[in-house]
Amino acid sequence: MPTQPSKKLERVPNAHPDRDYEIDLSIPEFTCLCPLTGQPDFATIRIRYVPDQWIVELKSLKLYMWSYRDEGAFHEDVTNRILNDLVAAIAPRRIEVTGDWNVRGGIKTVVTVRYEAP
Amino acid sequence: MPTQPSKKLERVPNAHPDRDYEIDLSIPEFTCLCPLTGQPDFATIRIRYVPDQWIVELKSLKLYMWSYRDEGAFHEDVTNRILNDLVAAIAPRRIEVTGDWNVRGGIKTVVTVRYEAP
Amino acid sequence: MPTQPSKKLERVPNAHPDRDYEIDLSIPEFTCLCPLTGQPDFATIRIRYVPDQWIVELKSLKLYMWSYRDEGAFHEDVTNRILNDLVAAIAPRRIEVTGDWNVRGGIKTVVTVRYEAP
Amino acid sequence: MPTQPSKKLERVPNAHPDRDYEIDLSIPEFTCLCPLTGQPDFATIRIRYVPDQWIVELKSLKLYMWSYRDEGAFHEDVTNRILNDLVAAIAPRRIEVTGDWNVRGGIKTVVTVRYEAP
Amino acid sequence: MPTQPSKKLERVPNAHPDRDYEIDLSIPEFTCLCPLTGQPDFATIRIRYVPDQWIVELKSLKLYMWSYRDEGAFHEDVTNRILNDLVAAIAPRRIEVTGDWNVRGGIKTVVTVRYEAP
Amino acid sequence: MPTQPSKKLERVPNAHPDRDYEIDLSIPEFTCLCPLTGQPDFATIRIRYVPDQWIVELKSLKLYMWSYRDEGAFHEDVTNRILNDLVAAIAPRRIEVTGDWNVRGGIKTVVTVRYEAP
Amino acid sequence: MPTQPSKKLERVPNAHPDRDYEIDLSIPEFTCLCPLTGQPDFATIRIRYVPDQWIVELKSLKLYMWSYRDEGAFHEDVTNRILNDLVAAIAPRRIEVTGDWNVRGGIKTVVTVRYEAP
Amino acid sequence: MPTQPSKKLERVPNAHPDRDYEIDLSIPEFTCLCPLTGQPDFATIRIRYVPDQWIVELKSLKLYMWSYRDEGAFHEDVTNRILNDLVAAIAPRRIEVTGDWNVRGGIKTVVTVRYEAP
Amino acid sequence: MPTQPSKKLERVPNAHPDRDYEIDLSIPEFTCLCPLTGQPDFATIRIRYVPDQWIVELKSLKLYMWSYRDEGAFHEDVTNRILNDLVAAIAPRRIEVTGDWNVRGGIKTVVTVRYEAP
Amino acid sequence: MPTQPSKKLERVPNAHPDRDYEIDLSIPEFTCLCPLTGQPDFATIRIRYVPDQWIVELKSLKLYMWSYRDEGAFHEDVTNRILNDLVAAIAPRRIEVTGDWNVRGGIKTVVTVRYEAP
Repeated sequence: MPTQPSKKLERVPNAHPDRDYEIDLSIPEFTCLCPLTGQPDFATIRIRYVPDQWIVELKSLKLYMWSYRDEGAFHEDVTNRILNDLVAAIAPRRIEVTGDWNVRGGIKTVVTVRYEAP
Repeated sequence: MPTQPSKKLERVPNAHPDRDYEIDLSIPEFTCLCPLTGQPDFATIRIRYVPDQWIVELKSLKLYMWSYRDEGAFHEDVTNRILNDLVAAIAPRRIEVTGDWNVRGGIKTVVTVRYEAP
Repeated sequence: MPTQPSKKLERVPNAHPDRDYEIDLSIPEFTCLCPLTGQPDFATIRIRYVPDQWIVELKSLKLYMWSYRDEGAFHEDVTNRILNDLVAAIAPRRIEVTGDWNVRGGIKTVVTVRYEAP
Repeated sequence: MPTQPSKKLERVPNAHPDRDYEIDLSIPEFTCLCPLTGQPDFATIRIRYVPDQWIVELKSLKLYMWSYRDEGAFHEDVTNRILNDLVAAIAPRRIEVTGDWNVRGGIKTVVTVRYEAP
Repeated sequence: MPTQPSKKLERVPNAHPDRDYEIDLSIPEFTCLCPLTGQPDFATIRIRYVPDQWIVELKSLKLYMWSYRDEGAFHEDVTNRILNDLVAAIAPRRIEVTGDWNVRGGIKTVVTVRYEAP
Repeated sequence: MPTQPSKKLERVPNAHPDRDYEIDLSIPEFTCLCPLTGQPDFATIRIRYVPDQWIVELKSLKLYMWSYRDEGAFHEDVTNRILNDLVAAIAPRRIEVTGDWNVRGGIKTVVTVRYEAP
Repeated sequence: MPTQPSKKLERVPNAHPDRDYEIDLSIPEFTCLCPLTGQPDFATIRIRYVPDQWIVELKSLKLYMWSYRDEGAFHEDVTNRILNDLVAAIAPRRIEVTGDWNVRGGIKTVVTVRYEAP
Repeated sequence: MPTQPSKKLERVPNAHPDRDYEIDLSIPEFTCLCPLTGQPDFATIRIRYVPDQWIVELKSLKLYMWSYRDEGAFHEDVTNRILNDLVAAIAPRRIEVTGDWNVRGGIKTVVTVRYEAP
Repeated sequence: MPTQPSKKLERVPNAHPDRDYEIDLSIPEFTCLCPLTGQPDFATIRIRYVPDQWIVELKSLKLYMWSYRDEGAFHEDVTNRILNDLVAAIAPRRIEVTGDWNVRGGIKTVVTVRYEAP
Repeated sequence: MPTQPSKKLERVPNAHPDRDYEIDLSIPEFTCLCPLTGQPDFATIRIRYVPDQWIVELKSLKLYMWSYRDEGAFHEDVTNRILNDLVAAIAPRRIEVTGDWNVRGGIKTVVTVRYEAP
């Protein structure tokens, strides 16, 4: 069963679109590369959203996270890009993405981005 | 004393309907089957509600939770269905149901659904 | 020094009635009997209130809690009754009583009742 | 289904007497009375034992613990008596009983008693 | 260097009075005497305030806390008095004082008092 | 990809049999049925062993745990049986199996069984 | 009911002298004075012992701890003296006294003293 | 690669200025000198901000924190100064700086300063 | 400053070879690939050793861990290999390597390997 | 009261040399410089010892720790040197020094050194 990292986020219909409810996903196994030094960075990504017509399919979300493994990415930028890609894929009513990055140079960084549909 | 899993939620009269108060129930022993793979899933279900004329009877709630043991159920859907069944059974003033699911594929999912009587 | 369980709650004057402030009492040693099976139940009772002219005397509160030791009492009902008795005894500006009950049948129950003086 | 507190500890055969193994039981709902003041005392009782031919039946153990509810008992003495009663009932190879008592007068007391069959 | 307990709270000028900011002080080593029994009581005192023109000098605050060591003081009263003395000494914009008292008679008491300048 | 519960434990060769080392497996998702009431029981199973020529294959271990889902099993007995089945399948140098069972009737039970090859 | 601090430790007969067992006492409310500065020091005292013919009476132990409130005492010395006084009063088979002192000058000190009867 | 402590905070362009999002930085390795005694003080500095056109460059932030190592600084003042320097360097939309200082004289101090762009 | 993943472990002389002492290294950022599925695995590696003539240089250790990022590796095998490579590089008196792997298929695996010089 | 960092460790007579007892000191505020980069390093130093004729004077210990503030020091070496200096100053019966260093390059280091008098 070959599976590959992929930037494509799949979606499935939300069975309860008549109601606002929250889905909270924690992904402690995110890694990418530092764009300056090329060395590995590690983070926990947390996604909280209120779906509209679609919910994100979890296996594709896992492969999406994997797709950053060999990419250089700044902490602030990659957290914003994950939010943008999720908004593009599932058009949620509200969404918040948090990147909780491991200590580098004695400093710990947490980036939190939010979006709300107009 | 034969007891059986059952989707029937029993109710008892609320002895203090003149007052808004909260009942918070935690049920760490919920299990159902994954609709895609047929393998067991595990969750903690938490129910917080403000009763109106009825409160849910706890033994029937336990048998109700048991009734999912051999059913296939998606995380998002089953959390919504538990809320719907409780609303139908006890017509609370407000209710919130949270399904806190064990890690699958390195991703942890928590689903939170709310209802408020008109 | 014979002390006895008693439903009588004593009060002492509030030395600072000109100001709203909070008193938060935790009583981890509450036990009564299940009205259905007669078996012991255990809870932690927590009382948070803003006093008006009176504050509750702590030794009488301890004897009051003791007075439930041989009584049958439903979780939801006894939490409401403790609040009612405190309102009758000390007429607080605001009060919240929480009964945090031990697990029964795999379900943990927490009941929270609030009152605010008109 | 009337159940009553009882000092009688029931036993069931150990299905694996050929092997030393440990059974560890925690009972956080123990209460008795202070022999000096008559006021309630609370403890967690923990029992760890290696069975020989018998293991203790859990429902009778629960009723046994309940039987102390209206008895006066010193911390040190009751912990020893629980051990003695268990040794008499199930003749374990080794057993340790711990009584972990709530704070009284600003002092927390934990009593640990051990027995080993000759 | 003789230091003595003292009810006198010293103050120093606030170097940043143009801005609202919070100072949060925790003092886990407070002890006084029970006014009824004369026995020692123990508490953690926590002070959170927004300074106006003055901030409290920490060494004098320490000696102030020490000054209660041989005084009888009710839980509710002493928490209010500490707040009053701080308001008199440094005239803060807002202040909250919490007294978190050790368990007595199986009951834990926390008293929280707030003041806001007109 | 149909997968089924199965009592068959698969094994793979130990690549480092020349050395004693420990493998520690935690399985928090074990459930079976109470042989007396037919109601679900829940446990965390922990396996610690020093392999000889074989190590247990993890997917078969997961299916093995699943195979208890519809079986009645006593706490003490099932913990011993899991150890026996592992000894039969992989003949380890040393092994310890712990069953950490959820509270029933206010009592928590932990069973620990050990085996050492002659 | 006047009670006074006192260096006199009372004892009561050990009802189970035929058996070695442990009594573990935690006293988080110990305070004395620093012999150099006269300022208050705070500690948690922990006593673990195996009684022989006597066990220490808890109310006298509380008054004993109170008796240090106005005494100057070095950390190392007072921990040794508490052990000596307990050995003199109850002649235990084994005893360990730990003084766990609050931070002073950025350094936390814990002193542990043991005695075993010949 | 010689690096030196420096009060100069570098900045890099914010790649997502169209959106309000939060950056949360924790720096547990801050030390300066007490202006009264000259002895070392230690703190954790936490910075939470919503960037406008600029974000702070992390290596320069590390050297900035290092620059306090040999300076005398009052707790309240240094926390305000760090906020002022960050506002001057990156002109954030909102920013909060917290200085969480180690215990001195039995008192723990936490200072929290906030700024919001007009 | 280009740095590259590398299997070469550098060493520096132990300045205190006359004495047995322990060095304990925790590396929470280890990732490799599952040899069966090719998907990423994550672990914390912990190394505890008593050096003889050499200690491991930390930067080379970091690059060594990085070198597994694109390799397929079984949990048990890679933990043994890390130990073997460290023994070859620094010939310690004693060493223990623990691989603490993230949950896969509901099972958490910890592998612990030890070596002692003859 | 000018105080200065100093490598001189003062000692005071042990008042109880007839008995083996333990003194456990934790110093969370240790900082020195990295010998390679000149940047600050941070550690918690823990000292556990059994005194013979002398105990270490705490104020001099604090100044001793301060004396490393501007020195370059390798993790392994400085932990050994602290032990050596303490042995030279107070000739304890047994002593253990632990240096628990903050994360550098994603690796946390703890060094533990022990000495026992012949």
